[in-house]
Amino acid sequence: MAKELTSRSENYSQWYNDLVIKADLAENSAVRGCMVIKPYGYAIWEKIQAELDRMFKETGHVNAYFPLFIPKSFLSKEAEHVDGFAKECAVVTHHRLMADPNGNGLIVDPEAKLEEELIIRPTSETIIWNTYKNWIQSYRDLPLLINQWANVVRWEMRTRLFLRTTEFLWQEGHTAHATEAEAVEETRKILDIYADFAERFMAMPVLKGVKSVNERFAGAVETYCIEALMQDGKALQAGTSHFLGQNFAKAFDVTFVDKSNKLDYVWATSWGVSTRLMGALIMTHSDDNGLVLPPNLAPFQVVIVPIYKNDEQLAAISNKVAEITPKLKALGITVKYDSNDNKKPGWKFAEYELKGVPVRLAMGARDLENGTVEVARRDTLTKETVSLKGIEHYIDQLLKDIQTNIYQKAFDYRASVTREVNSYDEFKVEIEKGGFLLCHWDGSSETEERVKEETKATIRCIPLHGDTTPGKCMVTGKPSAQRVVFARAY
Amino acid sequence: MAKELTSRSENYSQWYNDLVIKADLAENSAVRGCMVIKPYGYAIWEKIQAELDRMFKETGHVNAYFPLFIPKSFLSKEAEHVDGFAKECAVVTHHRLMADPNGNGLIVDPEAKLEEELIIRPTSETIIWNTYKNWIQSYRDLPLLINQWANVVRWEMRTRLFLRTTEFLWQEGHTAHATEAEAVEETRKILDIYADFAERFMAMPVLKGVKSVNERFAGAVETYCIEALMQDGKALQAGTSHFLGQNFAKAFDVTFVDKSNKLDYVWATSWGVSTRLMGALIMTHSDDNGLVLPPNLAPFQVVIVPIYKNDEQLAAISNKVAEITPKLKALGITVKYDSNDNKKPGWKFAEYELKGVPVRLAMGARDLENGTVEVARRDTLTKETVSLKGIEHYIDQLLKDIQTNIYQKAFDYRASVTREVNSYDEFKVEIEKGGFLLCHWDGSSETEERVKEETKATIRCIPLHGDTTPGKCMVTGKPSAQRVVFARAY
Repeated sequence: MAKELTSRSENYSQWYNDLVIKADLAENSAVRGCMVIKPYGYAIWEKIQAELDRMFKETGHVNAYFPLFIPKSFLSKEAEHVDGFAKECAVVTHHRLMADPNGNGLIVDPEAKLEEELIIRPTSETIIWNTYKNWIQSYRDLPLLINQWANVVRWEMRTRLFLRTTEFLWQEGHTAHATEAEAVEETRKILDIYADFAERFMAMPVLKGVKSVNERFAGAVETYCIEALMQDGKALQAGTSHFLGQNFAKAFDVTFVDKSNKLDYVWATSWGVSTRLMGALIMTHSDDNGLVLPPNLAPFQVVIVPIYKNDEQLAAISNKVAEITPKLKALGITVKYDSNDNKKPGWKFAEYELKGVPVRLAMGARDLENGTVEVARRDTLTKETVSLKGIEHYIDQLLKDIQTNIYQKAFDYRASVTREVNSYDEFKVEIEKGGFLLCHWDGSSETEERVKEETKATIRCIPLHGDTTPGKCMVTGKPSAQRVVFARAY
Repeated sequence: MAKELTSRSENYSQWYNDLVIKADLAENSAVRGCMVIKPYGYAIWEKIQAELDRMFKETGHVNAYFPLFIPKSFLSKEAEHVDGFAKECAVVTHHRLMADPNGNGLIVDPEAKLEEELIIRPTSETIIWNTYKNWIQSYRDLPLLINQWANVVRWEMRTRLFLRTTEFLWQEGHTAHATEAEAVEETRKILDIYADFAERFMAMPVLKGVKSVNERFAGAVETYCIEALMQDGKALQAGTSHFLGQNFAKAFDVTFVDKSNKLDYVWATSWGVSTRLMGALIMTHSDDNGLVLPPNLAPFQVVIVPIYKNDEQLAAISNKVAEITPKLKALGITVKYDSNDNKKPGWKFAEYELKGVPVRLAMGARDLENGTVEVARRDTLTKETVSLKGIEHYIDQLLKDIQTNIYQKAFDYRASVTREVNSYDEFKVEIEKGGFLLCHWDGSSETEERVKEETKATIRCIPLHGDTTPGKCMVTGKPSAQRVVFARAY
């Protein structure tokens, strides 16, 4: 195989980049920081989208679409929001090009300057709340439970495929409620959907928690998050759900008449996950041979490779495959039969390992005689010879087993590198080893800042289901309400 | 009902705008020319997307995603392409805002000027062919059959909801082939998919044809199109499929080694339909009471409205509805039960008429006694009382009948306003009445330009399945190979 990967132990970061490119998931484009998502990578993203979209709709949400452009003045309306986004945004200033009078191709037509510059949305709270103002008058207009699938742009200085790109794809939910309690409930409900999706589909265990003030979304009252742990011991924020209080309603003057006929500001939430999940998926399960995909998100779950010496053998194998395939499909299993004559079986084996196909079936002349097939699991790289009788049920169960197994493996890994740390000296040693460190913290931004500066670790979250025994801050010795989760993060 | 529409006869254009807004399909946003697609409108677009996506995938296409931004220099590489798009594009010149030192909010940070300006994609041929250059070396890499669902921006001066907006949503297919014949076949295959979708799902008859040079896509060798006719007698281009020859391969130097080991440029196609289809859908079927949706694209096909005097009656009706609904759903029929207590039945009837729900069931106390329900068709506005026994099969057939009926109605209308015109004097009279005029034309751009200037009519297409009897140009008397289709168009 020409597509050799750097090993994880050699250079984890290089392994990741190699893998994304060699497994045909994505590549850098001609535009700085923007990626091309290739068909195989996009097929995984489509599965992520379809599943989340179904979960949102089952909980009463609907989709809509709001403009790509945000008038510059909108950004300023929410004071914290503007601080968070104005420094890294793409600004449209003109609406026309013209031929350079000096003959050097195209130049911006100075006559076509916009009266007010437009920002490419880094997130859509401002344009959406400016719209909601016209949609909401009474409590009868609430709740609004709206999501959009969209591209957004944040002018990041350092970019990495999927993990941090100038343009990325995401969904952003924006809901409006009559009461604080209902908005908080929505924020938590979405957090549960995100965690459920991460665990059941991505096979990726996540911690649910609340962000510290420093890590909160610009404009939120409270940011809930799911935090995952990558194989190199670094954390990755996989999704956030924000309780926005009445901040955006106040900024855009969105009021409603409540049941008791009083005027009040509307309560808001927003929440999103992005193509960053692709990075999390890759780094949670993959190995030095390539991707390991959870069956629930694999573009195809089973690949069948024929092993033959002549056309006659190929024809006989293809006939047998044509018998099996409909049985697999009837169980909802997706199958690819690769009878391409240009590549040898060994090349195909390596290729589908690289691409993380959960199950590979290899069928040769002797298998036909014996009524068997060779079944290889991508997660364990083990092989066994199995009878073709009832093979569809065997595969169906195997896919479930793989899904469970890779979740458990990731769960066990996380457990093995999650530990309590009680002194800052110990912390400085332990943080070098990676993983989640459960520590007491005095709740101040200053202490968090100091830890970040001195160790590059941040508070990933204040866990919702953690140990709530009080203690003393590992740095300052001041009282701490509960242990929080520190880690270095992507 | 508060939501009165302007009638079509009074002011067709105003009727359209009223309808889009009052049926909650879309509205203008705070950004000039950009629309907000509201949940009900977006739900129709999602159905359009899902169906087309399925059709593309069934014919071997896959989805991918390419950057929103196009480097300015890319636009210039294909000479005709740049002429078509440079004059109406959004230009990103900076990547940061800063606080105005004079205290007036935010200004563009002059330090954050881009070295090369970026264009928001008006269409993606250039960035995609720049990418394909690295993907294609040999005939074994071909064909590439890739589609993307994306937003694009064209800085239109006059915009109308769905029909012409600065930002719009679309799909754009970009395929690469080893031979001219294969690329032409792809272009035609997609045209057939578009026509099939328009007719079977939108219930909208379309003419398939080829564009004249004047109306051809900037950079194409040949543009195929489907042309629809709106109720006001104006034409609407509903989809285009372009054979690009080797133009973009040459512009971006994309070559491949063919089977005989010779180097050649790659052959290309591109094709797209957009949210403009929503405008076509609305204007093909709707009436003075509101939308008329084809059952195959309606967000919900059946609405059930209870008619009751007290809670007891409502409970009994709700019980009966709970019996019927699963039977309808089992046949794949989508149903909404509106037992909202805040609105009277008459208000609901008008509301669902406005929203074009194909079938309305009204159920009252007497219906319960008699084992009946009142069934109203949106397309004919007729009502009848039907037995509840086997109602699901009755509705299933009714939805099919409605789908067929509205197609036939649109087909008959088109036929009634399509006629042959043989002299330019007659043409000038007839064009005022609208419809498709089948005329002989000498094939020159000059003649087409003259007709456009003098009558505002354009050649919509040279039909693929039209009468091919030669004749003489209605304007110049020069030889004409066949009649072409003239109309005024959106």
